[in-house]
Amino acid sequence: MTKVKVAGFGVSLDGFSAGTAQSLEHPLGVRGPELFQWFFPTQTFRQMQGKDDGETGLDDQFAVRAMEGFGAFILGRNMFGPVRGEWPDDQWKGWWGDDPPYHAPTFILTHYPRAPIEMLGGTTFHFITGGIEEALQKACEAAGAKDIKIGGGVETVRQYVMAGHVDEIHLAVAPVVLGQGEPLFSGMDLRALGYRTVEHVPTERATHIVLAR
Amino acid sequence: MTKVKVAGFGVSLDGFSAGTAQSLEHPLGVRGPELFQWFFPTQTFRQMQGKDDGETGLDDQFAVRAMEGFGAFILGRNMFGPVRGEWPDDQWKGWWGDDPPYHAPTFILTHYPRAPIEMLGGTTFHFITGGIEEALQKACEAAGAKDIKIGGGVETVRQYVMAGHVDEIHLAVAPVVLGQGEPLFSGMDLRALGYRTVEHVPTERATHIVLAR
Repeated sequence: MTKVKVAGFGVSLDGFSAGTAQSLEHPLGVRGPELFQWFFPTQTFRQMQGKDDGETGLDDQFAVRAMEGFGAFILGRNMFGPVRGEWPDDQWKGWWGDDPPYHAPTFILTHYPRAPIEMLGGTTFHFITGGIEEALQKACEAAGAKDIKIGGGVETVRQYVMAGHVDEIHLAVAPVVLGQGEPLFSGMDLRALGYRTVEHVPTERATHIVLAR
Repeated sequence: MTKVKVAGFGVSLDGFSAGTAQSLEHPLGVRGPELFQWFFPTQTFRQMQGKDDGETGLDDQFAVRAMEGFGAFILGRNMFGPVRGEWPDDQWKGWWGDDPPYHAPTFILTHYPRAPIEMLGGTTFHFITGGIEEALQKACEAAGAKDIKIGGGVETVRQYVMAGHVDEIHLAVAPVVLGQGEPLFSGMDLRALGYRTVEHVPTERATHIVLAR
């Protein structure tokens, strides 16, 4: 049965899952990259960059689980890009170049309609203006028997978790404090929502925790 | 030179360092004990319980560092006990029995004056009504060349950290979500306060992080 998952989601010790002031220069916000020190050296990430090196091991196993086998993805608009408000034109096609790492239908939450964009490698971006429920319904139809990943950003993950739609959350807790940024847990009672820790795998670069209901 | 430290301080993934509703039955708050699953099996904790068993290893090394070698301790009143308001009598002498685990002068922050209590094993409880600065000054005089530990609870740690008095913070991040409790990080910009991660030691039961300035 299709599961809805958050996976490979970085969070700092002090609970921030993105830095402040996202921009073209800082897609993850200022200091956001510190959350992904476990991910950047992995073979999975290096392959996304077109390289054939990279580390295997526990971090890479979680990276694989976070990127492969999904039948559909859902992203918030800020995860898709730095453009705000009306789309000025069709130029912006995501952070990832012509061949994004999704390789599946990918639904972008936005208030501003836009025609779908078919990218290389199996990724098609669909723009959803009807909110999280509509996006989830379309993702379910697209995913078939495969799982759906809520790819981010922070606010999108929070909305799906608090609405009770997320079966599993893999957090990669980075051994750093960010001080400022987008808080992941604020006002979100994961215990009351039914989550318990089902996996706990520490590595040198992160503590991987899988929560499930 | 004397350093002021927070040590062996538990925090959940979602940023809580104590459960809710502290009481005589729940000194750590409801679910608070989940934060200390790394500590309870250690030789250090077992010896505090008068047992001669317990695990050695990385968790125990951090437990030793968290309890030994301090010249003075500072505790918030709620860390000392469940009594609120005026002291009704001299009966309450802490959670720890006749021989508390401090073995050094221990300064209790309170709004209500009370005579010092000399316990067994070198612990004397001093009640400080002049606030965190006065407590720190007296702890410094008492500690000599040794370090001072801010023992908790959460609000006391937060006050000393935000006032810029804490040189080193050892957090034991528990692989659990509490959902509710006393938030450690809320509104506290550890980065702006100058903290960086200087140690990162994951174990099966916790991720130990030492922050220093």
